[in-house]
Amino acid sequence: MKHALSVTREQDFAAWYQAVISEADMAEESGVRGCMVIRPWGYGIWERMQKLLDERIKATGHENCYFPLFIPLSYFEKEAEHVDGFAKEMAVVTHHRLIQKDGRLVPDPEAKLEEPLVVRPTSETVIGAAFSRWVQSWRDLPVLINQWANVVRWEMRTRMFLRTAEFLWQEGHTAHATVDEAMEETMKMLEVYRSFAEECVALPVIAGEKPENERFPGAVATYSIEAMMQDGKALQAGTSHFLGTTFSQAQNIKFQNAEGQQELAQTTSWGVSTRMIGGLIMVHGDDDGLRVPPRVAPYQVVVVPMLRDNDEDAAILAYCGDLVTELNKLDVFREPVRALLDRRPAKAANKRWGWVKKGAPIVIEVGGRDVAGGNVSVIRRDRLYREDGKLDSQIVAKGDFLGAATGMLEEIQQALFADAQARLLGNIDKSITSLDGLKAYFGASKKPGWALVQWGKPTGTALDKVVEWLKGEKLTLRNIPSDADAADGVCVFTGEKAVERVLVGRSY
Amino acid sequence: MKHALSVTREQDFAAWYQAVISEADMAEESGVRGCMVIRPWGYGIWERMQKLLDERIKATGHENCYFPLFIPLSYFEKEAEHVDGFAKEMAVVTHHRLIQKDGRLVPDPEAKLEEPLVVRPTSETVIGAAFSRWVQSWRDLPVLINQWANVVRWEMRTRMFLRTAEFLWQEGHTAHATVDEAMEETMKMLEVYRSFAEECVALPVIAGEKPENERFPGAVATYSIEAMMQDGKALQAGTSHFLGTTFSQAQNIKFQNAEGQQELAQTTSWGVSTRMIGGLIMVHGDDDGLRVPPRVAPYQVVVVPMLRDNDEDAAILAYCGDLVTELNKLDVFREPVRALLDRRPAKAANKRWGWVKKGAPIVIEVGGRDVAGGNVSVIRRDRLYREDGKLDSQIVAKGDFLGAATGMLEEIQQALFADAQARLLGNIDKSITSLDGLKAYFGASKKPGWALVQWGKPTGTALDKVVEWLKGEKLTLRNIPSDADAADGVCVFTGEKAVERVLVGRSY
Ligand SMILES: [Zn+2]
Ligand SMILES: [Zn+2]
Repeated sequence: MKHALSVTREQDFAAWYQAVISEADMAEESGVRGCMVIRPWGYGIWERMQKLLDERIKATGHENCYFPLFIPLSYFEKEAEHVDGFAKEMAVVTHHRLIQKDGRLVPDPEAKLEEPLVVRPTSETVIGAAFSRWVQSWRDLPVLINQWANVVRWEMRTRMFLRTAEFLWQEGHTAHATVDEAMEETMKMLEVYRSFAEECVALPVIAGEKPENERFPGAVATYSIEAMMQDGKALQAGTSHFLGTTFSQAQNIKFQNAEGQQELAQTTSWGVSTRMIGGLIMVHGDDDGLRVPPRVAPYQVVVVPMLRDNDEDAAILAYCGDLVTELNKLDVFREPVRALLDRRPAKAANKRWGWVKKGAPIVIEVGGRDVAGGNVSVIRRDRLYREDGKLDSQIVAKGDFLGAATGMLEEIQQALFADAQARLLGNIDKSITSLDGLKAYFGASKKPGWALVQWGKPTGTALDKVVEWLKGEKLTLRNIPSDADAADGVCVFTGEKAVERVLVGRSY
Repeated sequence: MKHALSVTREQDFAAWYQAVISEADMAEESGVRGCMVIRPWGYGIWERMQKLLDERIKATGHENCYFPLFIPLSYFEKEAEHVDGFAKEMAVVTHHRLIQKDGRLVPDPEAKLEEPLVVRPTSETVIGAAFSRWVQSWRDLPVLINQWANVVRWEMRTRMFLRTAEFLWQEGHTAHATVDEAMEETMKMLEVYRSFAEECVALPVIAGEKPENERFPGAVATYSIEAMMQDGKALQAGTSHFLGTTFSQAQNIKFQNAEGQQELAQTTSWGVSTRMIGGLIMVHGDDDGLRVPPRVAPYQVVVVPMLRDNDEDAAILAYCGDLVTELNKLDVFREPVRALLDRRPAKAANKRWGWVKKGAPIVIEVGGRDVAGGNVSVIRRDRLYREDGKLDSQIVAKGDFLGAATGMLEEIQQALFADAQARLLGNIDKSITSLDGLKAYFGASKKPGWALVQWGKPTGTALDKVVEWLKGEKLTLRNIPSDADAADGVCVFTGEKAVERVLVGRSY
């Protein structure tokens, strides 16, 4: 069967991924090293994600703020582990002026900063400094804030949406009086991420704690949601960290408790980024391009008039205009439907395939015959082809379509999730009990999925040995699923008594 | 009369401005030079502005994108005038890694960038580079995009919201086939800014063209909206630029026209920033703090339960909870009402004054007596005091208040605008015809307002002389109001025949 993209997932998954991004006009290279331009369709998906996640962040009591892009070096020096984790990959501002020299612009030596500034890779240090000003007494706690921002982590090898020098994200930061409250917050936001990913982005995930070696620099415990891409690899799609007193010690976030004693606050942080768009592509894309779940689609229904540059065109445009107006009056997922009339001066067939590649959930075509018969031609992006391999374009009475449209969008949202969920659950092997078994499982196929194995939760050098062995097989520990069965066997790595189950897989 | 702030506008306008920001918890110094922390109440106002302006930007056919934070120096070198305008105040990234040296973090000399990167002060150059990739044929035009972003302009003397090293804004960028279309776009966005400022932020403004000396670096024409602060100074609250072919030449934005010839595109750019929040404060604030117009207030109605730590508290909280639920079901300005129940553990009187200082449009207090009588106590922020100088708190039946609430919010929005509009119109002197007259007008009062004078629209060195003279009086040319009467006299500066009228005033 012929498909809209020139490369299939089967042929070359990495090339296919780039082709989807390019053919769906989601993003492109910017000419600035490691930075991409996010184009309207890609940014529109991010705006939808922002809106739906922001609602959930606010509904759980958090308020949005904005903190500086620049962080003085001295803030980083206070937290050694955090420095080790980030110092290797930060953009450093050293001058505040340029001058002309020999016809070229150069940093002005006279304008060298006394203390260089780092472009934030994450904001624990600068937000911690604010918390230390805001928190004096137990009455000031909890502090529950979030910011939507750009961050920069210098990366040698970049990949659009998955790993870029600059990326967009939200970072939540909270301070609490007790470990219990901070842990409750950490788990609450993990659950917000899980439900947001599954309900809005139709991205089934496994939520759980990361092993020690995968913790955020400075965290006491890190939790993640892990999604399975169509090539079987894992993508960490969101993280929630219990930071204990690491940053309250470094930034001096102290409060007087009800008994009048000084205590260090317990802090958390949690983030989701534009990386999730990469996950959306690799979970829902197919060989015809992207498929966007209706809840995060910038447009849910796109109406393409089939114009012929003749007298009929005006009637077709009017008919389409009415249809879009009617659609936009409907509600779905408790929001107005987002329908678009595509008036651009291009061939209808090119426009149709353009929207297929962009993954608009429903594409409607309207020609002169449709207008005459009071019909529309409906293409559902989740069921693009008939059994015989032909494009499945159904002629439906306009009124019937209007009555069915919102149900159809709900169905598409559900179908994309169900497909991905079946793939995730069907590709986690729970039967492996030996290193040879792991080797065999991950060697047997190009897209092996994951293994859920029992282990003794080694720490320190014992864990290093495990990680080293896995690295040799290009494998990583993903997380310890919160809802996994209790251990009842031996550690696949050491043969000792197992204490829990951990997910193993290749990863992005 | 006693007021909530410790300094009045009359005593010290600059100190009053800082007091409002601090007492309303809008923003604070961050500890990072020139950068502020925008706290939830300040950021909440920005989120409201973003939502309402974004709707208008999209309704006029623009799509949001995201472009890199970093711009290579070579991009700037292509446009000499633009460089001159910005090179003096840019943050320059020169290294991409830190190392430990003598126990301190320093930029790693091994990780020096071959080409330094500038943190964007504005994005014409990097967006122009994208346009040159996107535009090949007349069919690709117009390109209509916008981005919401942070930008950095190094400033020696900073002031919260008005002038900070980093600030938040939206920047629209468009490319067109003809001068006419680009000018139409420039004026359309000026009008979007005018209507947004007046209708949403209740900020009356004068829209018009900036004189030559006040143009954006690289622009052919710059238009602005100018608002009058309560100290009589002008604040430029938004700008729209017709850039001609300046940036299409520098960035090579060319298209094949319908006749098959290569042409340079005509471009525009336009922006509104967090600076407008500074304008909101200085236009609507009073000696009791901020007054936020209901359309941009994070919360429009705040309900403060007057708790006594006794048995009645539960009934009061339930009563208040119902009230907030009912309020949130109402619509005003075609959106749901935003009401908040303030449950924080603090004294009711402190909470009341806290919300007065924050400028919540309506504050409701509910005590045991109110519950018993089925009443609420209503404080309107735009009419805080009675004739006798006492706080104007009106006891109203709960049902009556619910019936009147949305009308009251509309009234407050209108009243704030009307007040500011009267002040603006009442403080523009149109009768001045000589330099002595200008001197006398601006010397006669500490808060003189503006003068609208006739002038000959001098250019080049003739204009320089005018600007120099004005500078001596601490005055600036604001703009040539679009709706001013035609000139019918002589130029106030030269005595020659006047061609138009220009606004003169002190400015931020
Ligand atoms: Zn196929
Ligand atoms: Zn007074």
